[in-house]
Amino acid sequence: MKITQTPLVILNFKTYLESTGEKALQLAMALEQVAEETGVNMAAAPQGADIWRLSQEVEIPVLAQHIDPVDVGGHTGSMLLECAKEAGASGTLINHSERRMQLADIDLVVSKATAADMTSVVCTNNIQTSAAAAALGPDFVAIEPPELIGSGIPVSKAEPEIVEGSVAAIKDINPAVRVLCGAGISTGEDMKAALDLGSEGVLLASGIILAPDPKKALLDLVSKI
Amino acid sequence: MKITQTPLVILNFKTYLESTGEKALQLAMALEQVAEETGVNMAAAPQGADIWRLSQEVEIPVLAQHIDPVDVGGHTGSMLLECAKEAGASGTLINHSERRMQLADIDLVVSKATAADMTSVVCTNNIQTSAAAAALGPDFVAIEPPELIGSGIPVSKAEPEIVEGSVAAIKDINPAVRVLCGAGISTGEDMKAALDLGSEGVLLASGIILAPDPKKALLDLVSKI
Amino acid sequence: MKITQTPLVILNFKTYLESTGEKALQLAMALEQVAEETGVNMAAAPQGADIWRLSQEVEIPVLAQHIDPVDVGGHTGSMLLECAKEAGASGTLINHSERRMQLADIDLVVSKATAADMTSVVCTNNIQTSAAAAALGPDFVAIEPPELIGSGIPVSKAEPEIVEGSVAAIKDINPAVRVLCGAGISTGEDMKAALDLGSEGVLLASGIILAPDPKKALLDLVSKI
Amino acid sequence: MKITQTPLVILNFKTYLESTGEKALQLAMALEQVAEETGVNMAAAPQGADIWRLSQEVEIPVLAQHIDPVDVGGHTGSMLLECAKEAGASGTLINHSERRMQLADIDLVVSKATAADMTSVVCTNNIQTSAAAAALGPDFVAIEPPELIGSGIPVSKAEPEIVEGSVAAIKDINPAVRVLCGAGISTGEDMKAALDLGSEGVLLASGIILAPDPKKALLDLVSKI
Repeated sequence: MKITQTPLVILNFKTYLESTGEKALQLAMALEQVAEETGVNMAAAPQGADIWRLSQEVEIPVLAQHIDPVDVGGHTGSMLLECAKEAGASGTLINHSERRMQLADIDLVVSKATAADMTSVVCTNNIQTSAAAAALGPDFVAIEPPELIGSGIPVSKAEPEIVEGSVAAIKDINPAVRVLCGAGISTGEDMKAALDLGSEGVLLASGIILAPDPKKALLDLVSKI
Repeated sequence: MKITQTPLVILNFKTYLESTGEKALQLAMALEQVAEETGVNMAAAPQGADIWRLSQEVEIPVLAQHIDPVDVGGHTGSMLLECAKEAGASGTLINHSERRMQLADIDLVVSKATAADMTSVVCTNNIQTSAAAAALGPDFVAIEPPELIGSGIPVSKAEPEIVEGSVAAIKDINPAVRVLCGAGISTGEDMKAALDLGSEGVLLASGIILAPDPKKALLDLVSKI
Repeated sequence: MKITQTPLVILNFKTYLESTGEKALQLAMALEQVAEETGVNMAAAPQGADIWRLSQEVEIPVLAQHIDPVDVGGHTGSMLLECAKEAGASGTLINHSERRMQLADIDLVVSKATAADMTSVVCTNNIQTSAAAAALGPDFVAIEPPELIGSGIPVSKAEPEIVEGSVAAIKDINPAVRVLCGAGISTGEDMKAALDLGSEGVLLASGIILAPDPKKALLDLVSKI
Repeated sequence: MKITQTPLVILNFKTYLESTGEKALQLAMALEQVAEETGVNMAAAPQGADIWRLSQEVEIPVLAQHIDPVDVGGHTGSMLLECAKEAGASGTLINHSERRMQLADIDLVVSKATAADMTSVVCTNNIQTSAAAAALGPDFVAIEPPELIGSGIPVSKAEPEIVEGSVAAIKDINPAVRVLCGAGISTGEDMKAALDLGSEGVLLASGIILAPDPKKALLDLVSKI
């Protein structure tokens, strides 16, 4: 079932040890608790090998970090959409800056996700690629200037014109596509600024994962909405 | 200087022996002769190592087949835009189905080409990716369903709705972007059909390169315009 | 704990629906039963998202199909060795022909697997690359001429000189590296021929996965040892 | 015709503006002059689009920086060995750390170069990959620890054990393969140290290309042999 409720917080677990295996499970449970306590929609995007484990234990949406542009068959080492779905993923990140994809492959995975009723979140790096992504018709476009990822400098403050420009360009091409804002976001002020700029949520990672107390960091994140 | 005159015929030399080195030069001269005789604008897209050699000998536009998404510096084995330009290229194909690129890299090379006053031709595979490419603001989008490339079955006949749909989607997003039509095109009828569907030219390869008499094939190609 | 017992049968689950999710679990249980009944060592290489699920249910070795050449940190969409291990993988395929890797990356993943006490199985396509792989010191080299993969034509019959030549070249460089034989193998005769040529086991996939009765096919496979 | 005379100096032009087009030609002429004046064998590895231009003007060996692992046919944007050869290249770098290749592709290009009587220089990053490369039978292996490339810190001083270990491992596997030493080398002392460690030449780039007077830098480089 697709994600519809916003504001939305997606936590990209990446490949940190702090968000792997048993610790991934704890982090997902923190997300779930904060979602329940605050009413803000929270989704977890763990590593592929953790999808089943988390899906068995939490009720929040679980997304894949990446789906390979392949159909069923002989594709050793690929993340197959059908496998991710059966493991419990209800959507996927696509084209994250740490896993960029070819244009035709982004289109293919968005189409496959749509056909499978899974939420598609295409990551982009600037206004032009955000507009291009919108033309492919995903559920969400997450704009993340790569130079700010992991920087602790929130895009909503450092380059607000990129967020505003992306929102405008995306809505101009396809008003049904919703916009998330990523890169450097970790505090309640960052998130409020992101929403004020027209986004409907955030995609974040190390700011929460590496925080001394991730649950507390999540509570702070949504405190100013 | 950018290509402006249409209808436009771009011949992608690919990596056939029939379009390599000395034979690439002969093919470029055939293109030039047909351009002069018929008044139809013709451009050659030879292999990188043949760009300088052709540019010294012919007056028609010479395009690179690919530019790598890198800036000057330490990038061994890359095709640098600045090098292609100094060698005589006045534009480049981008994201050909045999050399697909990541979305952010297509955007980067289109931007670099624009800044260098070089013609950018982004190749796409369906209506959605054509729309996405248009959002990046290239000079041309060349729509080529991969399954028809080298097939001898012209896209303008086999899947006219893809050409028409792409033209409509591209113009809707950016009316300044012009559309070329590729894949399977080799005869005068194919080209006429392509233009009738709203494209302003064709991108072709083996149908001409491997013809017994390429010059004759080119003359036939433009005979029904 | 590393795999030591041979002859060894590794079943690469690839991305077939017949070896995904619930069906992957059934297939792993069939492998386990045949291993118990016959005493032949059997390992399962499921998709990443199925590793945890299978590891919880079966006692046979579970291998990843691929590990990305990254360390812990910001690597969205990657298969991290540490995550695969915690999910239950005791080894990994490396450089399968459907997921070829750069030379330096093969070396990195072999080194990481060795440091983590995980079994490394490097796939190769001919005698020279088998020799090269042996120089990297993996536990196993699995020789699979790509043109025979999924063909139903066993390498042990079609190109026995590649298997013999690979065994000789590998042992010459590093006698501790053991050799598996893949591509087209599915019957007891195929496996016997593979062992007679000097290999210590087989890597197989569709011949078993798509068989009407995989357990029966496995029993046949090891019937002539 | 293959390169046989050592010591050998290969200058990788990379994609610096200082080694592009007209400036690439000047640099190649400086290499030629120093080769004539000192009797030391010097080769130029310019960008693909400069190969023909340089080959027409200088007598020293010209190498490609990269050859794509493709045969003649439909491979848009690839550097075809046959095209590089006709343009004047007598050999090629393979698997440079800035253009790493898959193991099977390195093998393919080494084989193609050998069949075409062109010099093959496989770049590697450590002792294990040097040994692996030797097993593929190229003419030269050039060992370049990536962390020292462009650093100004010569590998021959910073990590002499990697050079010595690579020479030993390579000769152990195939005594006919000759070893070059790269990364951080720019002075006469660096080159002497490289030769003393068992290498038969050097592969270098920015230390010469970006020097105020490249010819003078080259004369210094070979002054202590």
